Amino acid sequence: MSKADVLKKIAARLRIHSLRMTTRAGSGHPTTCLSMADLAACLFFSEMRYNVDDPEDWGNDEFVLSKGHAAPILWAAYAEAGIIKEEELMDLRKISSRLEGHPTPRMNWVKAATGSLGQGLSVGVGLALAQRLGRSRGRTFVLMGDGECAEGAVWEAAGAAAHFGLNNLVAIVDINRLGQSDATMHGHDLGAYARKFKAFGWVVHRVNGHDIPAILDVLNKARAARGPAVVLAKTVKGKGVSFLEDQNGWHGKPLKEEELQKALREIGPMPDICARKLVRPRKKALCPDWKKDFSFERTAYADKTATRLAYGIALEKLGRINDWVVALDGDVKNSTYAEKFFASFPGRSFQSYIAEQNMVGMGLGMSVKGFIPFLATFAAFLTRAHDQIRMAAYSFANIKLCGSHVGVSIGEDGPSQMGLEDLAVFRPIPGCVVLYPSDAFSAEACVEAAAQHQGLVYIRTTRPATRLLYSKEEKFPIGGSKILRQGDGDAATVIAAGITVLEALKAHDELKKENIGLRIIDAYSVQPLDRKTIGCAADQTGGRVVVVEDHFPAGGLGEAVAIALAGKARVIHLCVRELPRSGKPDELLEAYGISASHIVRAVKDLIRP
Amino acid sequence: MSKADVLKKIAARLRIHSLRMTTRAGSGHPTTCLSMADLAACLFFSEMRYNVDDPEDWGNDEFVLSKGHAAPILWAAYAEAGIIKEEELMDLRKISSRLEGHPTPRMNWVKAATGSLGQGLSVGVGLALAQRLGRSRGRTFVLMGDGECAEGAVWEAAGAAAHFGLNNLVAIVDINRLGQSDATMHGHDLGAYARKFKAFGWVVHRVNGHDIPAILDVLNKARAARGPAVVLAKTVKGKGVSFLEDQNGWHGKPLKEEELQKALREIGPMPDICARKLVRPRKKALCPDWKKDFSFERTAYADKTATRLAYGIALEKLGRINDWVVALDGDVKNSTYAEKFFASFPGRSFQSYIAEQNMVGMGLGMSVKGFIPFLATFAAFLTRAHDQIRMAAYSFANIKLCGSHVGVSIGEDGPSQMGLEDLAVFRPIPGCVVLYPSDAFSAEACVEAAAQHQGLVYIRTTRPATRLLYSKEEKFPIGGSKILRQGDGDAATVIAAGITVLEALKAHDELKKENIGLRIIDAYSVQPLDRKTIGCAADQTGGRVVVVEDHFPAGGLGEAVAIALAGKARVIHLCVRELPRSGKPDELLEAYGISASHIVRAVKDLIRP
Repeated sequence: MSKADVLKKIAARLRIHSLRMTTRAGSGHPTTCLSMADLAACLFFSEMRYNVDDPEDWGNDEFVLSKGHAAPILWAAYAEAGIIKEEELMDLRKISSRLEGHPTPRMNWVKAATGSLGQGLSVGVGLALAQRLGRSRGRTFVLMGDGECAEGAVWEAAGAAAHFGLNNLVAIVDINRLGQSDATMHGHDLGAYARKFKAFGWVVHRVNGHDIPAILDVLNKARAARGPAVVLAKTVKGKGVSFLEDQNGWHGKPLKEEELQKALREIGPMPDICARKLVRPRKKALCPDWKKDFSFERTAYADKTATRLAYGIALEKLGRINDWVVALDGDVKNSTYAEKFFASFPGRSFQSYIAEQNMVGMGLGMSVKGFIPFLATFAAFLTRAHDQIRMAAYSFANIKLCGSHVGVSIGEDGPSQMGLEDLAVFRPIPGCVVLYPSDAFSAEACVEAAAQHQGLVYIRTTRPATRLLYSKEEKFPIGGSKILRQGDGDAATVIAAGITVLEALKAHDELKKENIGLRIIDAYSVQPLDRKTIGCAADQTGGRVVVVEDHFPAGGLGEAVAIALAGKARVIHLCVRELPRSGKPDELLEAYGISASHIVRAVKDLIRP
Repeated sequence: MSKADVLKKIAARLRIHSLRMTTRAGSGHPTTCLSMADLAACLFFSEMRYNVDDPEDWGNDEFVLSKGHAAPILWAAYAEAGIIKEEELMDLRKISSRLEGHPTPRMNWVKAATGSLGQGLSVGVGLALAQRLGRSRGRTFVLMGDGECAEGAVWEAAGAAAHFGLNNLVAIVDINRLGQSDATMHGHDLGAYARKFKAFGWVVHRVNGHDIPAILDVLNKARAARGPAVVLAKTVKGKGVSFLEDQNGWHGKPLKEEELQKALREIGPMPDICARKLVRPRKKALCPDWKKDFSFERTAYADKTATRLAYGIALEKLGRINDWVVALDGDVKNSTYAEKFFASFPGRSFQSYIAEQNMVGMGLGMSVKGFIPFLATFAAFLTRAHDQIRMAAYSFANIKLCGSHVGVSIGEDGPSQMGLEDLAVFRPIPGCVVLYPSDAFSAEACVEAAAQHQGLVYIRTTRPATRLLYSKEEKFPIGGSKILRQGDGDAATVIAAGITVLEALKAHDELKKENIGLRIIDAYSVQPLDRKTIGCAADQTGGRVVVVEDHFPAGGLGEAVAIALAGKARVIHLCVRELPRSGKPDELLEAYGISASHIVRAVKDLIRP
């Protein structure tokens, strides 16, 4: 039997599995599985090299199913490869199963969660960069849908892949003509896709996505390309089942039992073939044995320093003791100070240009290969990558994001540049740590804590240079806080973070003149919040609490404290309550109600009998 | 004097203004103004037609400065056109001034705030669509930077413009080679940009961006294009000042006073020319006199109905009585039920395909021309457009967004498809109304309220069909709530919204058997929250409150209630506290702690002595 014949039989098995699984589950996307069945057979059982016993084998090719709704056929392919048991397929979408409706790393061969479309190619760019950096001979394959090519993130990734000259990256686009609700913009016009990928610097191959010898041939050619290569595969949604083929209205619908039987009759009996034997690993390869320390010698700051500058200094120091740390930038490295790392470690520095979504997707791809990516841009622009950040969390990624230029304290550039909703972006992310240092010493400590922590960490930094509050020996554990001022009979507690800590200290000094004592807490760990210290302080200060933050009202420190203290304290929340304007930092802190004078007033309101 | 000579003099004036303004302000981006000065002179004083007395003139050409950091030259151009007084330019970036660091509609000729790069082209697509729909002869011009072409959103917009065949849209790319921190990906390789725009279906012209006759010529050609046309202008950053020209390191830096004097000497004295005379309006045109009602006859639902379906039904009804309502979709209209509007009003329906960023940008563009765009997709995928939503709010836009498929109640599709952070996206947005209906009747009422409200509104809808709670006569004003159950001596208040209202009602019935009374509040207006009713209920139920929501912990209803009640009530917050899995809706509500049984338990915890 020829290889093509064998692969054809495997494709039939994948189709049968996909149809059965989705009918059993009562939901799912069978027709999008059918269109890619022949492509999947060629990839998993001919082109790709992987060690079925070890998803972490450093020589493995990596695979990203960017069109995540085709999850059933991914599970089916892993079943055919012998990685999961065939009977487990029938657990698709059950609450007890790792075989979810869209791929998540709960199944350990899935490196990145997909299902929000148009993200897989960025992850693939990150994986391919990581393979190159770690001298793996592994390559990366990303299987995309045609509909998702409308997402701009795809073109950010396409541009980056060509820029980095990734000849170990192959994208396959399953062009089945039909989106969810209707035909795609380009239908079966492969030329339209070809022109775009070519213009973005890719080597383009077209193929009939159901012609197995032709698919093997283009994959072969793609392997020889000098840069990233894309295979544009013309396919038929629902291929193999006459009443599903090329029909609108079947997206995301499983077959009823009688429809399933009819479909299975058309496909024919389950071919008797052992696909597993076709899977070929590369020679076992080991992950590089590079240094991976986290504790660096802190800087002895002596003068006012911006926390963003301290971030850059710390990142560079971390880079010296940890070869796994990489830095990514969105063309603002001279503002975030990631430039210090870029200058010292050009080989581990990656310019994403002004493409934040791709920056996060690349970071995710690098992190799953063991790198520790530090990504930085203006906090305001991280909103651009919110969906990618969300999916990174769903991928249990170990990436560190720094958002600089937060709040009205940036001054004259105006609201488009002010991070005023970033805490509300990161706090809901499951498991995400949120750190907000108030001086250069704490900023360095936060970088160290972030690196040491396995998981997503967000660090919020401030534009202006601010005075020093701590020392280089001080520790800032995740989940902690600092009591900066306290005395017997303190009248109220002020909880602040970042720039507002300084305002709180001024308010303290002001009120001291009137013999009013204030407890000042630097809640640098916004999440997890130090509920114990805060609860205790509230209790000891008569349940009178002021929270002051350079952020919009919702989703930030104020609400975090309010829910932590619910029923235990009165809380006055000072924050930015309207759309701010351009102006000088001090003017803006005053105008939008988060300066020392407003804190003084709030405390007086609280203590008024 | 030839026209080109006159325009050259105007360009010199624009350069002089830009340099002086930024030096005076002590911050800003002079060099990016200098690269586009000749382009601006040709656009504002030759190519574009506008009535200087009326920014709303229906015949006006529209202009979007996508590279918003070049704001000073925009203000300078309006000063030269006589729209603002020349002396006002010196107020740039002052807190009292409408001339902000990046353009905002506080200056009434700015239709959309810019400054977060890569968004202007989508807004331009929306403006051009609105002009076409409203039979305006006006055209739309978008001036972009080269750096921002790395943003995927640019390519989403480029694809849409070609798809819609917008021959009234012209993009001009100021290719000055230098980004903020370094050279751009393509530097001065105009061919790279030409290939991309051409592949995306645009007519492409290249020009030396400092050769005024050549610029006039390509703008002339662009006017005759059958589809969207782009002018790729090769320019020099800092053009006109020898020590600034093509130099890295000058981005976002104003000149010091002595540098300014040196620069002004190079440019020469302020040319004596009255630019205003060159501005030509079109024949005065009036906005269409279409019907614009808001109150439609509600549906007499009789059986279980999904709120997403009621949204679609209501939107179609609204479309019948209001010609200004338009609908935009991200290829999920059969899930959000926007398809009902699409079927009845194809001329007012716009398919954005799977490109949420562009969908929001287009909506913004249409809204500033008076249309009332309703945009819908899965709530989870609105995170993709977070930056555009933020900028729409900063543009005081009147757009309505619907996020369907919220929370774990969607079931088997899994976390990538579950909107679990959408409340945290929308609640911080200044002025944004957030509505979350719990049944079909309230969903229809929310659509009506949203349409009637001037400003940004977010409506959250649920996937499964749910039972009816209200009647078609019931009103749901913004800022209100509904007390669904109450009695003397209620032991606690349960605050819910959407799907959890039904769980709260079940808990009520359960506890009633044990003679425990519950006050049940449907907080359908999540923002603004009905603090009064909620405060009163908390007070009357012994300060015992349970909030239950199908959302992650941060930034949602729980924290909104916690801050509203701070110090006045104990609050138990039931919400989704970990990354959920695929499963059946009821199973998931139970597994993640937001079902009736969890509410019962929480109430019992609260009332335990």
